[in-house]
Amino acid sequence: MTGMEKFERIKEYVAEDLERTENTIFQLLRTENRTLVHSTTHLVKAGGKRIRPLLVLLCGRIYGELGERLYNLAACVELIHLATLMHDDVVDSASLRRGSPSVNSLWGNKISVLTGDFIYSRVFLSLVNLVGSMEAMRSLSRATQIMSVGEIMQVENTGNIDLSERDYFQVVERKTAVFLSACCESAAQLAGAGNKDTAKLRDYGTNLGYAFQIVDDTLDFTSENEQFGKASFKDLGEGKVTLPIIHLLSHSDGNVKEAVKNVMYGLGEKAMDSIRSALHQAGSLSYAQNVAEDYSRRAVASLEGFKNDGAVNSLIELSHWLVKREW
Amino acid sequence: MTGMEKFERIKEYVAEDLERTENTIFQLLRTENRTLVHSTTHLVKAGGKRIRPLLVLLCGRIYGELGERLYNLAACVELIHLATLMHDDVVDSASLRRGSPSVNSLWGNKISVLTGDFIYSRVFLSLVNLVGSMEAMRSLSRATQIMSVGEIMQVENTGNIDLSERDYFQVVERKTAVFLSACCESAAQLAGAGNKDTAKLRDYGTNLGYAFQIVDDTLDFTSENEQFGKASFKDLGEGKVTLPIIHLLSHSDGNVKEAVKNVMYGLGEKAMDSIRSALHQAGSLSYAQNVAEDYSRRAVASLEGFKNDGAVNSLIELSHWLVKREW
Repeated sequence: MTGMEKFERIKEYVAEDLERTENTIFQLLRTENRTLVHSTTHLVKAGGKRIRPLLVLLCGRIYGELGERLYNLAACVELIHLATLMHDDVVDSASLRRGSPSVNSLWGNKISVLTGDFIYSRVFLSLVNLVGSMEAMRSLSRATQIMSVGEIMQVENTGNIDLSERDYFQVVERKTAVFLSACCESAAQLAGAGNKDTAKLRDYGTNLGYAFQIVDDTLDFTSENEQFGKASFKDLGEGKVTLPIIHLLSHSDGNVKEAVKNVMYGLGEKAMDSIRSALHQAGSLSYAQNVAEDYSRRAVASLEGFKNDGAVNSLIELSHWLVKREW
Repeated sequence: MTGMEKFERIKEYVAEDLERTENTIFQLLRTENRTLVHSTTHLVKAGGKRIRPLLVLLCGRIYGELGERLYNLAACVELIHLATLMHDDVVDSASLRRGSPSVNSLWGNKISVLTGDFIYSRVFLSLVNLVGSMEAMRSLSRATQIMSVGEIMQVENTGNIDLSERDYFQVVERKTAVFLSACCESAAQLAGAGNKDTAKLRDYGTNLGYAFQIVDDTLDFTSENEQFGKASFKDLGEGKVTLPIIHLLSHSDGNVKEAVKNVMYGLGEKAMDSIRSALHQAGSLSYAQNVAEDYSRRAVASLEGFKNDGAVNSLIELSHWLVKREW
């Protein structure tokens, strides 16, 4: 079975719910403004794994049938994620001076920012009107806020070749883990789970978030096929120092450091080749992979005590699949 | 009495409350992230008239003493406004190609966007935790969403020399009036006003918003002192076609049209001079001023039936002052 097929099988348990969520996403974005129709549709249709709504639906499913409120919640978390992507695409004025922007070329910065703002405010209006849970709103607005701090820390860390593992994990926690955690938590709250269950699902989401991000960062160096939306070394080329590079730099000499700097400054192919072989030699990719698998195991352990039904089983399968994925 | 002194007198009725709101703004922005400490503080300290919290406080005061929840609401509306300004400062990649950016030069686009996102999410978290009114959250998230549509329409209209008054007013409504209206509405809701009162205050805010924006747009052509934060013709230079220009273009010949285009394309002084005299000749500035005063009168009329106490009187004075202001 391919990785893609495995993922489809995991989603199967809530396949209909995912479809309803997809429709809800389009409903929530309905607008008469033509620019927004285009910019939001483009974003939603560009696809994505829909991991966040999947978490909401599976966590909700533990407690029985899903109602409209859970579909709306699932749609809202994906929309928050999409708005974040939209804002990620904003090109920095500083970086523009160095080269031409590749992302964001369809509409320009202003429209990217305003589309993201439109989506965020639609989400909060929908949380008030269609989800209606103060607890869920608290979880998600808290997580969204922490995410923006994580993104800022990532900008602060850009190009910092002396980044520590601790610095790296602080960003991963804020940028990714807290929000995946909030997806699980808010679904549990809405489905009427007790405090203990809610805490377990929150922990599951946190650990899954760490695993997810570390794998994502590792794929930047390994994935060379078209399936994965990113070009290889894209993160490093943008000055993002991730776990494999942190490991590599603490296990190699000045030449490697130079090569890393060269990739950051856009001095390509040769430096990339030497980093590629250095990563293998230092075992940096397996190191990162092991850390991710450790978090994946912790995610599974968080679910201890739950009755192993279809929903819980899918959550377990998801955490296994996530660290083996190739896109 | 100078305009500034008159404004101070209007604010006097809630002077202590405004001070508490100012402190609350800083409290709500508290963060350990150093970049955010700087970027948010810079923004708040840059000042501003604080019209939006003033509306919240005055509308709340009609119903007696203000509690913590109203201070938090007042702080939240100003923070939404500041986040909007932060996102307004994002420089478009397209416009960057023409010249160098003057705004936003301290931190770059990325940090501007993320600081705005941080503020928005803090606001929603604070609305949940500290204001706690579903009605107020609905008003503000609805208004915020409409504002982003207004901003997008403004981008769409950029450089459109054939813009109609109708198009212009659609943007003014969405960009400004709806939010000032929501400030009044949410304060009334929180203070426990009845539906009739709430509707009146909402209408007051809407009309005030129109007046406020039209005056703002007129000041772009008349204000030549340092008090006003904007340089003259700044809006037009950015391709924003506002009421005086729409009036002018429908009352003049091709030469004026050329001059307007020249200012939009950054071809300065001489074109500005000819527009300046054409505006006076066509009576375009008095026309816009009259429209603003009409909205100001409607704002006052919306308050009919209220007992004319200190708070209501200040709202009336505010609408008079707003159309006479020079900054």
